[in-house]
Formats: sequence, C-alpha cells, structure tokens
Amino acid sequence: MDTVTSIADLRTSRPRCILPVGFVPTMGYLHEGHLSLVQRARRECESVVVSIFVNPTQFAPNEDLNAYPRDITRDLELLEAQNVDLVWIPTPGEMYPAGFQSWVSVEEVTLPLEGKFRPEHFRGVTTIVAKLFNCVQPDKAYFGQKDYQQVVVIKRMVEDLDYPIEIVVCPIVREANGLAMSSRNINLNSEQLRAAGVLNRSLVKALRVFESGQRDADMLRAVVTDSVLEEPLAQMQYVSCADQDTLLEIDGRVERGLLSLAVFFGKTRLIDNLLLGE
Amino acid sequence: MDTVTSIADLRTSRPRCILPVGFVPTMGYLHEGHLSLVQRARRECESVVVSIFVNPTQFAPNEDLNAYPRDITRDLELLEAQNVDLVWIPTPGEMYPAGFQSWVSVEEVTLPLEGKFRPEHFRGVTTIVAKLFNCVQPDKAYFGQKDYQQVVVIKRMVEDLDYPIEIVVCPIVREANGLAMSSRNINLNSEQLRAAGVLNRSLVKALRVFESGQRDADMLRAVVTDSVLEEPLAQMQYVSCADQDTLLEIDGRVERGLLSLAVFFGKTRLIDNLLLGE
Repeated sequence: MDTVTSIADLRTSRPRCILPVGFVPTMGYLHEGHLSLVQRARRECESVVVSIFVNPTQFAPNEDLNAYPRDITRDLELLEAQNVDLVWIPTPGEMYPAGFQSWVSVEEVTLPLEGKFRPEHFRGVTTIVAKLFNCVQPDKAYFGQKDYQQVVVIKRMVEDLDYPIEIVVCPIVREANGLAMSSRNINLNSEQLRAAGVLNRSLVKALRVFESGQRDADMLRAVVTDSVLEEPLAQMQYVSCADQDTLLEIDGRVERGLLSLAVFFGKTRLIDNLLLGE
Repeated sequence: MDTVTSIADLRTSRPRCILPVGFVPTMGYLHEGHLSLVQRARRECESVVVSIFVNPTQFAPNEDLNAYPRDITRDLELLEAQNVDLVWIPTPGEMYPAGFQSWVSVEEVTLPLEGKFRPEHFRGVTTIVAKLFNCVQPDKAYFGQKDYQQVVVIKRMVEDLDYPIEIVVCPIVREANGLAMSSRNINLNSEQLRAAGVLNRSLVKALRVFESGQRDADMLRAVVTDSVLEEPLAQMQYVSCADQDTLLEIDGRVERGLLSLAVFFGKTRLIDNLLLGE
C-alpha cells in the first residue's frame, strides 16, 4: 500500500493505478461504514484509492473541527488489511494555501435539512470533493447513504459540472442497537450510546406506520418526533419527511420519501435517515 | 478533423487524442487572436482540441448574448486549415439542462475591473471552463491576454481546485490601428472601427510616459483617460492602473502594473490592457 501526503506525490503514484480506479474519500477515524465502501470499491475496481482528510471548510466556527476524532495509524492498518492500493493524506496547508479563494457550490438541494442548520457546510464539501476528484481522477467514487443529502449534492455537482465519475451509494452500516456508524460516535458516553439507538428506532417505527398504510407526511413526522421525545437524553434538532430528489418537505401525501433527523446527545450531533417507498 | 456536439461523442473521441492534449476554448466567430492560440497549441501539443460555445451564463440579461456574432461554417474551415484534431460544439441544452444548479466561483480577483461592471460574468466563465476542462481533460489550455482578468481568474481556479492543467497565456493580436482583435469588432461600423484605435493608442501613450519615468498611478490613469476623451465616439466605462496579481487599483507609486480600460462605441463594449514594468 502506497501512502502519500503531497499532491505532487499523489500525481506520481496515481498513474501506476490500474483502471478502473475506485475512490473512497473519508475524514478518517474509520469504522465499518467506511470499510464497507472500501470493500465495495475493491470488488468493483482494479485499484482502490482512499483519502483521509478532516476538511476544515465544511465545519462552521462553532462546530467540532478540533474535537473531530483522528487516528491515522489505526486507519492505515485497517486500509492495509483491506488491500487498498493508495492512501492519500492531504495536508490542510496544501489544500487551502494562503490566498485560496475558489469554491464549488450547489444551490437548491443544499438549502433544506442539514443546509438549514449548517449553511456553509455543503460549500466546503463540494469544494473539497471537487479538489479530491481533480487530483485522484477516479472512475467511481463511493459514499455512504448515512449522509443522504451529501450524496444528492455530490451527484448534482458531478452531473452539472460534467465530472466523468460514477457515484456509488452504499447502505448505512449500524451498531447492534441500530445506531448508524459514525466517527463521532466515539464522543458519546456509554449512556448516550445506548440512548442514541432512538434515532433508528424512531425512523423504523415511522416506516412500519407507513407500511401499514399511513401516507400523511405530518403524521409520519409526528411518529418520529414523539418517539425521539421519549428519550430524555435526546435533544432534537429536526425531523423531516422530504422528497427524495428535491429534499423539500412533503406537504400532504407521501408515496416516496426521505425520513431524516438530526439529534444532539450532549455536544454530539447525530443524523440518520431512511427511505420510504423506495 | 473530428467534429462533435454531444458530451457522449466527445468522450468517445477524446481518448483517441495522442497526449499531450492542448485545448483552446472559444466562443467562436474566430479571428487571428484565436488562431494564434490554436497555432501555439499545435506547436506545443500532440493533439489540439477546440471548443466553440457562446456561454449564456457569462452574459448578464442586459448584455449582448443574442447579438454575439456566430459563424460555425467559417469557424470549422479555419480550424481545419490549422490542422485541429477535434472540435467540440456543445449545445446550451446539454451544458445547462433543466435543474442545473452548480457553480464554480472565484472570490477576490473577480471583484474589481470587469467584475465591478459585470458582477455575474466570471462565475459564468469559471463554471463553463470547469465543465469544459472536466470533459476535455487537457494537459494545457490556451487563453489570450486580451482578457487579462479572465486569465488571472482561471489560473486561480486551476490552482485552488487542483486542475492538473497548465494555463498558457498568449499575447494580444491587433489590427493595423492597434485595435485588439475581438469577435465583437464586427459590430463596429467603419467610423467606430477607426475610432477604436484610441484604446491601444491611449495605453501605449501611458506606457511611454511610464518609460520616461512617471511612476504615479493617478498620473498614468489620467494619461489614458485624457487620450480616450479626445475621441468623440468613445464612451469610457473605466480606466485602471492595478496590481498585476490582485487586480486592485494602485494608490501611489507603480513599479509593475496592469493598465486596462473598457470603452463603449455605441452599444459595443471593448476592452484592452497593457502590462507596465513586466
């Protein structure tokens, strides 16, 4: 496994990759969710490139950039075991040198849901992903469904800006209690970890209600909300039942939808989602 | 010479190009300025790709998108004669389909000069150039110095977003009276054509004054302004003496600078520039 940090070294190593190249961009502190992306890339591509970069521009000043967990040594061991070909660990100084002033932004689909509470977040995401794509030049790139809106935004960027890259979306990987795997879960204490099972449990409860015939968006949102409120450690930020493509809240009847929510446990913010009528 | 319109056809043809690939993006209605870029690309690269696309998003509603001259048949003859390998004529419908919502934007260097009078212009330019780059994937791309700020903006975008593309800047090609070649010159009547020589003449007058020792930015701007005002058909929009990199107006002493101006003749807007103390 080749490990590089500078863009120059990446550009030296990248042409040695046999095509097609699969790419898994990560912020490190890898868990089973990341590894499922790597495994999928390994199955579908001749070469697998993984990047590890905690991207500062997608964190607001009041968010957890500094608290974001990091363990490069462990990450490299995990990736080596997955038979990854090339790991790129960019440096913030090279990604965002003095004078940096160019941005990639996506409009409508970044406004609702996460975008409402993290208004600068997606501009940071699309900019770093464009940069990573321009450096790695993959044939396929792998993202987790946990960040559903991120997937919609990146697919939109790829289509609008004509990146010749296929975006592959992989299912959410969960803990035994249903908690979606996330690097941020390490910041939960054992009580919060247990309590955080309420996110998935609430979504599944609404799915059951949907499957039993309930089609009213307000009712479905209420099922999730009521269920989350039963957990005293949970501080709800939003519950949504939105269109899967536009991400706009559905008013009235739901045939196909995205249930999603954001919940704080102490200072740790967790998100989860589930598709209705896929 | 291979001529394609769809992105799919471009993606079929592009891999047949021997590397390195030189790319000349144009809005068509080609003149000697464009051909000098093509010739430079021909000398430096194994393959030459030219695009012809009048990009709607870089025109404001009050600007001359519809009046912009077009003659694809003549353009193709000229490019054939230059031994171009591949010409791509994208369609507006495929470049900006319904639902398009992603933009590439550069901040500081787009604000002064042209950006002041054409506030949406450079976002349109950087977005289309990013799209063209993602499709053509050239090794080198050729731009004319006539659009000096555009060159600064695109270089910044390429550096910030890590495009593995070398930007090559070619000198301004001029008519006998000094008028910089431009597709828009066709919209000038014979009287305006003659009168438009005043742009270059005024810049050169200021260069002479600079060379004779004058270093005060206000004085240099005044030389240009006074000279333009002598031409009754000219309606001046701005005269600038700015830093070559930041494009901010120089206040006080000039050692190295960019003299530039925008002048209307009737409805036709012309720009020109000249470097001081290169």
